Amino acid sequence: MEQMFIYLVPVLGIVGLIIMAIKSAWVTKQDAGDATMQELAGHIARGAMAFLRAEWKVLFYFVVIAGIVLGWSGTLVENSSWIIAVSFVIGAVLSAFAGYLGMNIATKANVRTTEAARTSLAKALKVSFTGGSVMGIGVAGLAVLGMGSLFILFYNMFVVSTGGDVNGDAMATALEVLAGFSLGAESIALFARVGGGIYTKAADVGADLVGKVEAGIPEDDVRNPATIADNVGDNVGDVAGMGADLFGSYVATILASMVLGREIVSVDNFGGIAPVLLPLVIAGLGLMFSIIGTLFVKISSENASVQSALNKGNWISIILTVAASYFVIMYMLPEGDLMLSRGGSIAFTKMGVFGAVVIGLIVGALMSIITEYYTAMGKRPVNSIIKQSSTGHATNIIGGLSVGMESTVLPILVLAGGIYGSFLAAGLYGVAIAAAGMMATTAMQLAIDAFGPIADNAGGIAEMSGLPKEVRERTDILDAVGNTTAAAGKGFAIASAALTALALFAAYVGLAGINSIDIYKADVLSGLFVGAMIPFIFSSLAIAAVGRAAMDMVNEVRRQFREIPGIMEYKAKPEYEKCVEISTQASIREMVAPGAIALLSPIIVGFAFGPEVLGGLLAGITVSGVLMGIFQNNAGGAWDNAKKSFEKGVEIDGKMEFKGSEAHKASVTGDTVGDPFKDTSGPSMNILIKLTSIVALIIAPHISEVPHGTVSDSGFVEDSKEITLIEENSEAKLETIERLKIQ
Amino acid sequence: MEQMFIYLVPVLGIVGLIIMAIKSAWVTKQDAGDATMQELAGHIARGAMAFLRAEWKVLFYFVVIAGIVLGWSGTLVENSSWIIAVSFVIGAVLSAFAGYLGMNIATKANVRTTEAARTSLAKALKVSFTGGSVMGIGVAGLAVLGMGSLFILFYNMFVVSTGGDVNGDAMATALEVLAGFSLGAESIALFARVGGGIYTKAADVGADLVGKVEAGIPEDDVRNPATIADNVGDNVGDVAGMGADLFGSYVATILASMVLGREIVSVDNFGGIAPVLLPLVIAGLGLMFSIIGTLFVKISSENASVQSALNKGNWISIILTVAASYFVIMYMLPEGDLMLSRGGSIAFTKMGVFGAVVIGLIVGALMSIITEYYTAMGKRPVNSIIKQSSTGHATNIIGGLSVGMESTVLPILVLAGGIYGSFLAAGLYGVAIAAAGMMATTAMQLAIDAFGPIADNAGGIAEMSGLPKEVRERTDILDAVGNTTAAAGKGFAIASAALTALALFAAYVGLAGINSIDIYKADVLSGLFVGAMIPFIFSSLAIAAVGRAAMDMVNEVRRQFREIPGIMEYKAKPEYEKCVEISTQASIREMVAPGAIALLSPIIVGFAFGPEVLGGLLAGITVSGVLMGIFQNNAGGAWDNAKKSFEKGVEIDGKMEFKGSEAHKASVTGDTVGDPFKDTSGPSMNILIKLTSIVALIIAPHISEVPHGTVSDSGFVEDSKEITLIEENSEAKLETIERLKIQ
Repeated sequence: MEQMFIYLVPVLGIVGLIIMAIKSAWVTKQDAGDATMQELAGHIARGAMAFLRAEWKVLFYFVVIAGIVLGWSGTLVENSSWIIAVSFVIGAVLSAFAGYLGMNIATKANVRTTEAARTSLAKALKVSFTGGSVMGIGVAGLAVLGMGSLFILFYNMFVVSTGGDVNGDAMATALEVLAGFSLGAESIALFARVGGGIYTKAADVGADLVGKVEAGIPEDDVRNPATIADNVGDNVGDVAGMGADLFGSYVATILASMVLGREIVSVDNFGGIAPVLLPLVIAGLGLMFSIIGTLFVKISSENASVQSALNKGNWISIILTVAASYFVIMYMLPEGDLMLSRGGSIAFTKMGVFGAVVIGLIVGALMSIITEYYTAMGKRPVNSIIKQSSTGHATNIIGGLSVGMESTVLPILVLAGGIYGSFLAAGLYGVAIAAAGMMATTAMQLAIDAFGPIADNAGGIAEMSGLPKEVRERTDILDAVGNTTAAAGKGFAIASAALTALALFAAYVGLAGINSIDIYKADVLSGLFVGAMIPFIFSSLAIAAVGRAAMDMVNEVRRQFREIPGIMEYKAKPEYEKCVEISTQASIREMVAPGAIALLSPIIVGFAFGPEVLGGLLAGITVSGVLMGIFQNNAGGAWDNAKKSFEKGVEIDGKMEFKGSEAHKASVTGDTVGDPFKDTSGPSMNILIKLTSIVALIIAPHISEVPHGTVSDSGFVEDSKEITLIEENSEAKLETIERLKIQ
Repeated sequence: MEQMFIYLVPVLGIVGLIIMAIKSAWVTKQDAGDATMQELAGHIARGAMAFLRAEWKVLFYFVVIAGIVLGWSGTLVENSSWIIAVSFVIGAVLSAFAGYLGMNIATKANVRTTEAARTSLAKALKVSFTGGSVMGIGVAGLAVLGMGSLFILFYNMFVVSTGGDVNGDAMATALEVLAGFSLGAESIALFARVGGGIYTKAADVGADLVGKVEAGIPEDDVRNPATIADNVGDNVGDVAGMGADLFGSYVATILASMVLGREIVSVDNFGGIAPVLLPLVIAGLGLMFSIIGTLFVKISSENASVQSALNKGNWISIILTVAASYFVIMYMLPEGDLMLSRGGSIAFTKMGVFGAVVIGLIVGALMSIITEYYTAMGKRPVNSIIKQSSTGHATNIIGGLSVGMESTVLPILVLAGGIYGSFLAAGLYGVAIAAAGMMATTAMQLAIDAFGPIADNAGGIAEMSGLPKEVRERTDILDAVGNTTAAAGKGFAIASAALTALALFAAYVGLAGINSIDIYKADVLSGLFVGAMIPFIFSSLAIAAVGRAAMDMVNEVRRQFREIPGIMEYKAKPEYEKCVEISTQASIREMVAPGAIALLSPIIVGFAFGPEVLGGLLAGITVSGVLMGIFQNNAGGAWDNAKKSFEKGVEIDGKMEFKGSEAHKASVTGDTVGDPFKDTSGPSMNILIKLTSIVALIIAPHISEVPHGTVSDSGFVEDSKEITLIEENSEAKLETIERLKIQ
């Protein structure tokens, strides 16, 4: 019976997708409002699809070429196969499909939320949050279904059918091929996150510069050809970008835990693969409990707290997942000591594995809380920037940079504590499982994140359609909550990327056949230096790209105003699609350089200098990327809310300052600087650190120093206690192999 | 005879100091100009002394308390002594004295340069450069004398008199005690660089905000109470800060090379201590050849190139030092293979040691060239910022941040290549020797650096005294060259700090009794994360401190305008000393937090988590600190020159823009943001990474995992060739010990 357990995972994924379809249908059948509203929404939806089509065209070639190279390389080494190319393509397609799902529902839910807000706040929350849930459940459902079914396929193909060792080369090959899925997912995420980030800010800045400054028409005016691109950008960046990012993290975390799980010799009722299966099962359960959690996100009156409703749903899904994880871990894992078969490993019990899950959830929660503190209105960091706005542009910038740098302290201490704690709880497997625990409720996290931009767009549509004041007031309440959840979501995303990268890092070391990454060696230290530099050049390119892409947009808008007569008199329609295409093409063109750095640097370093130097490179990228990510996200978020504070009026040295004051102008400068920080380069750090780690994992068998995959050849025994353990484990392993052969 | 060679080093130091005294006397006897000029110079000189007095008062307590703790801790472990406290105090006193020397000559040379500029450019260059030379030669002379004589003392005390092993515990103790000198020097450097950086920018911003904005009087007006503090600040930050920084690097580099040299078993004519003695001898020779190089810095006509004259002197000193190093290395080191006695070590020859010296010099030169490119007027990076100034404050800031981040790429590749290359040339000893080679001509580098601010001040005095136009034109020529050398000097300073920190890092690992720093261990990786975060919080504190200190200054200036009648009518003299004291107190108060982080973080981590985690912390601080230093220095330098470009007029999209245009205003914002970047937090990174490494070195014996100091106990033998070498070396060592006992 236990052998059938493996089929549970894809079934949970399918259940999730069915529920998503039901929720999606419910959103679609809601009232989309009057003709003006529908027209506006239609432009945005078509623009979003135009972006996806253009992106897919480019990605098609990338996926084909990368797939061929990958398939060819898979035939070169013992522990891989050409099938990795299939896995890669499926990962890429599912990631693209997840992006489509999110974008599609977001562009439907926005106008329906506006219409719902005419009735009540409760209805508006229901529509917008259901829209977010479709995205969240869809992303997690596709990941669970894809990973679950591919694992069954590859497990049967490479392990069961060959009678191979579940702790050895056979399972290593199955997981290496499965890693292709993760590479596909993360590659698309690179385009979605970096390209989307460039897109949204290029459109935003470009629309403002010509429309507001040159033509003198208000923001979000339908006569501005770039306005639709601007609105599309919000969906492209905040919805699809975040979705692809978390889809990638989710898949990569599960993968890393599985790869590390292979190295645990486990005498269990699952043919010895319980530690490999566990992360998949936790992900499936997290999906189910996230769905249950979404049912609790509702309010009953106009005065109820939206934030409390979201928190309630979030905590219910977390607590249920923790409880379920406890029982699953106790049921699946064997009694007694477990350990990885590698140097520096420590022995742990299944209780320790559960402890790691709990640590991961705590790290995620703390990261969200800290991020919120540093970017929320009314707290010390944002207030300090407001105060420094009164002495001009420069002091506003200095204040924001200082806040951003300061905001790295607590998250890093939490992360470092989490790494160390989860390692003590369950060794390197614990670090990976902590990440898996944190990511288990991804569906819920993403629902909360995606709800924000939907509410934001809904407010914009209400404003542009000239709806009654109370409609905008209701969407504003949702939007304000959305700003808070967006900041917290970024904290969660960078924490998940960091833990995922570390789990991949640990998995990589195992596959690369090395026992240590000793930065006391000159070449490894050089790798660390070069790695730490990469997030700097990546950020530099991303920031500069926004500037250049915005200039392209400016030129196109000027051309339309010049060449299409009647736009200003509403007699002619601007060619929105042209702007959308300009922004799309510019974003795809500009993300080639950073993308190439992320994809190629680990390949070059790995093949030129070997696996240990590559390990140094990865550590450098991860450490520096996490810091630069937190710094840029939080500085940008704090600048944004410092500016927003002026809208309500702020008190500086006993004097009230409002929109239009000199201090407010200074705060606008900070906000503009913060835009590429928080929406382009900052969030791109997540992808950078994960993608480089996955690439390293994929090339590990090619650059491996010793043949890998078995327990004995990687042992680095440090004391007599461990020797005994390994001997005991070896006996257990032999038993497992015997049992498998009998089956 | 060879045994007397050891006494050569302090003799060279004394020779240097005598030449410095002669040059200093020459500067002093130059004409100091008319009464107005002398009065202005007098204010600046008194202000500078006021800063030093106030600083020394605080430092006195710090040195006494730290000295007592250090002396007490020295008695706790076998491989140290209470004498480390004496060494520490001497290091602190000499560093403070070096700062006094530099500040004293700079405040004399400035006005004399102004007066000389009335005659000719050649004369003005001679006075200002001689002033710079006094500082450079003084700093290097004190370092060579101090390190040389203390080494003789401790060598006789701990090794010769006890008949101890030159490769073992006895020499380890001598060098550990000598490390106190370096700690003293670097602690004072922390105050000078960080405090000085906060001082100069607080005074600058404070003087501008009240004087220019509120009172409406011009910059550098004698009625502004903060004007003297502003001018003092230039000397405090650029002269004394840089001097103390390089004094610290110079001493720390020599020390690290000596500590690593101890581990080389060398059968030479110097009692087996040639590898320990070599860095001292190279430093002494570099001092001599720097002095010779200064003789070539002169021009014969008004149209001659000042930059070429400086380059000529610089290259002569470098080439002579390289040539001399070759002969000294060939003379001192034995034939055949040499190697450290530790894991991961490689064998090398004395030719390799010479190769490492050359690599160090190349790294230093390349770093200067790259830094110059990224911050010079007329080059792509600065031009890109100029162009982005045309669209406003925000795009100017984005441009500068992007340039700063991009500018990390080449320096990091050069550094990584240098680390790897010097390691291949002569193992870890090679990395340290490369740093020593780079630092050998510190006297010349510092002369070139200090000449800039002297010329800058000279120009200011010319302007304020209403001297003829051609005087200002001549000082402007010198000032422009000074701006270029200042940028190059910062590149050199960060490179030297990086190599020094790495050499100290290598020395630390040896003293801490560990063989590797494996970031694959969860606790070490956590240390790496926390370490990499420290430069961010350090920068945040430094930047924020400038803001707060500037506010203190503003309040004091407002008080004086209010309470002292007649200032505006030139009837009453403002209380310049009050502003100087405010700035001094504020800077000392504000640097406590960053200083405590630098001093305490390695102590806390080392004792709480052990030597390997501390190694991770150090690596994190070094990597992240180097990146943040380069980023901030170059962004600040580029912003500064983008602003300066507007003074001559720049062409943006075919239109000329000048001072006062909107684009120029945007460039001023960038310059103001860049001020604390390039003069406070950026240069502080140098001190941060060196000081934490020295603290780690000092506490290494206290947290050592195994008793250290002998060859055998640290061996981690990797292949049979190394085993043979170690056996051979062991025999050689025994011979050496025998020989020492006979003497």
